[in-house]
Amino acid sequence: MPRRDTVSFLSDYGLADEFVGVVKSVIRHLAPHASVIDITHDVPPHDVRAGSLALARAVQYLAPGVLLAVVDPGVGTDRRAVAVEATEVDLVLVGPDNGLLAAAASLVGGAARAVALTNDEYHLPAPGPTFAGRDVFAPVTAHLANGVDLLELGEAIDPLGLRPGMLPLTREEDGKLMAEVLWVDRFGNVQLNVDPDEVAGYGDPVRLSWRDQSRVARRAVTYGDLKPGEVGLIVDSYGLLSVALEQRSAADELRLRPGDAVALDAPDV
Amino acid sequence: MPRRDTVSFLSDYGLADEFVGVVKSVIRHLAPHASVIDITHDVPPHDVRAGSLALARAVQYLAPGVLLAVVDPGVGTDRRAVAVEATEVDLVLVGPDNGLLAAAASLVGGAARAVALTNDEYHLPAPGPTFAGRDVFAPVTAHLANGVDLLELGEAIDPLGLRPGMLPLTREEDGKLMAEVLWVDRFGNVQLNVDPDEVAGYGDPVRLSWRDQSRVARRAVTYGDLKPGEVGLIVDSYGLLSVALEQRSAADELRLRPGDAVALDAPDV
Amino acid sequence: MPRRDTVSFLSDYGLADEFVGVVKSVIRHLAPHASVIDITHDVPPHDVRAGSLALARAVQYLAPGVLLAVVDPGVGTDRRAVAVEATEVDLVLVGPDNGLLAAAASLVGGAARAVALTNDEYHLPAPGPTFAGRDVFAPVTAHLANGVDLLELGEAIDPLGLRPGMLPLTREEDGKLMAEVLWVDRFGNVQLNVDPDEVAGYGDPVRLSWRDQSRVARRAVTYGDLKPGEVGLIVDSYGLLSVALEQRSAADELRLRPGDAVALDAPDV
Repeated sequence: MPRRDTVSFLSDYGLADEFVGVVKSVIRHLAPHASVIDITHDVPPHDVRAGSLALARAVQYLAPGVLLAVVDPGVGTDRRAVAVEATEVDLVLVGPDNGLLAAAASLVGGAARAVALTNDEYHLPAPGPTFAGRDVFAPVTAHLANGVDLLELGEAIDPLGLRPGMLPLTREEDGKLMAEVLWVDRFGNVQLNVDPDEVAGYGDPVRLSWRDQSRVARRAVTYGDLKPGEVGLIVDSYGLLSVALEQRSAADELRLRPGDAVALDAPDV
Repeated sequence: MPRRDTVSFLSDYGLADEFVGVVKSVIRHLAPHASVIDITHDVPPHDVRAGSLALARAVQYLAPGVLLAVVDPGVGTDRRAVAVEATEVDLVLVGPDNGLLAAAASLVGGAARAVALTNDEYHLPAPGPTFAGRDVFAPVTAHLANGVDLLELGEAIDPLGLRPGMLPLTREEDGKLMAEVLWVDRFGNVQLNVDPDEVAGYGDPVRLSWRDQSRVARRAVTYGDLKPGEVGLIVDSYGLLSVALEQRSAADELRLRPGDAVALDAPDV
Repeated sequence: MPRRDTVSFLSDYGLADEFVGVVKSVIRHLAPHASVIDITHDVPPHDVRAGSLALARAVQYLAPGVLLAVVDPGVGTDRRAVAVEATEVDLVLVGPDNGLLAAAASLVGGAARAVALTNDEYHLPAPGPTFAGRDVFAPVTAHLANGVDLLELGEAIDPLGLRPGMLPLTREEDGKLMAEVLWVDRFGNVQLNVDPDEVAGYGDPVRLSWRDQSRVARRAVTYGDLKPGEVGLIVDSYGLLSVALEQRSAADELRLRPGDAVALDAPDV
């Protein structure tokens, strides 16, 4: 089997502890030719949804190779550890089968083959079951980088039986589009789960309503088009609508957070 | 053209989102031979001055290759994206033309050639104009690493027409040296824009005055020379004067922050 | 001498400043073949004990090569800078001789040879003595990666004369095991300096007492075995006992921090 040269790595390990460094050390030890690209390690602890969305935003830009993703509140329980081969690109996704990988996998064509990581010849001996990143996922990733075939790593499982993700869908209700905040980025931009086509009928500006608040937002192409204090609605770099302020945090100003419900419609005339 | 093997990368993207990982993934995809060295990604959001100063502190230590720097509040507007070839070292600086690169470029001899990144054959197709790091700067950086000539990337521009940085200069006023805080580091050391020669005439100790406060600082060679509670004035690792306390944060204790004005003179006898 | 390909790097530099990036740039410049693996850079400033414990947790997983560790409150004073060759693995440890390296070195068999880094032909010229990471440790690390022999780097010193670490030991007192919190990880798990064998006599559950508080903890194999709110005592991935709650921070809930004293015994019936 050909070697794989790149490991993309996402986790909720943070960078304060040595977890990320130890996982990389294990990979380096077993597959010294492989380069590791950190996607992020600051997924909030145990937040499978946030990790899944970050993977979905990143996956189409990843270099071919292995994607290692660990947000794993069920570590050590009977949740499965899996490796999944993508259909449309040269990528094997490795991680817990808890929905974390689902959105990313479906964006690269779904799973061609999948295994549960039950063959412990490819794991490290472990003093306890709590650091699967180091003891299971890292060595498996390294062996994949070395060209080991997926089916060596454990028993084949039905790719359609993988645990699905939970990406929220919009719905219409009383002439409004009921949406949800997917993500707040470092700059305070508030990404909604809304495709620009879905709001075409509301014209410009668009009214946003959440909790007991309501604001009118102007469609704009880029942050710099906004006047100070003006709320903008921008097609972001992932093709989704994003609520933004010029050089300030829309999330802080408007008190919007991931998971918040937001309704969109045409403002009253 | 010869390939370039190292990309040094600074931004205000932070490490919580996947921005940095995606930029690196694009570079890895297009120029797999290149190694990326992170300088820092925790420049405060949109803080061009802080980014510019970090680049200035780092630039003389960078490995030859490409320096990619993104602190870009004007992303998507008509601010230019540029690549600049240094005169004295083998380094191409890539980033927005907003003053971010100016101090670093002048520290490596100024710009020999410069282009505006207008040739979109070297960019990625983008759903929106807001993530130039991924869609413009990363692919351009990768193509430079692959040996593409600067002039392929867009129209040549006058290297002298690049937007200048705004490094604050000291001035004398009423026998005092009027200075400014450039930087507070992790340990709370407070770097001033003051060369040791500028305070030679004041003797030792030196009086520091800011807002409504005043403290006397003793010249010292290293942090360990200071007694507990004593304010020291040290020539730091960049050759500038730095206000320090022994194993405590001078910035927290003295309430000094980047941009604060500080006057230096001889204390009254 | 054979080249070394991997540098593992731990520090208290944080990631907000460019310190880590500059150290890596110096290594890249001098030893371009070497890959740097970050262990962590978020050791609390000047916290030699925390850095030492992180190294001890990581060291057995490191790839062969050089371990560069910098937590150095005495930088610029007469504390020695050292390089230490491990006995049992192919690893050279580089850093200040302040106890930081002691626990890691002893976990890899102790020091075979050691030198003080007194040969400044292998250092960078420095404007001041405060950034030894850049000016001393980074170039020395790079030269080691290039195959320079340890004894070239300075005068040989007695490996037994290195400053010892201060790993706290448990003791028995009035039928209780007096222990200490070694580490709180990102997930709030509280690692004690206690081997599971030491509490075998207390049965299950075990009583934990600290300051004016007391809780009963159930022995469990993994976090998922715990019921909501239940305090668990788990053998962690380093083989030590760890206080944990299910998907919540035991450290926050129980107000336990590194260095806190905890007594363990059998609960009253």
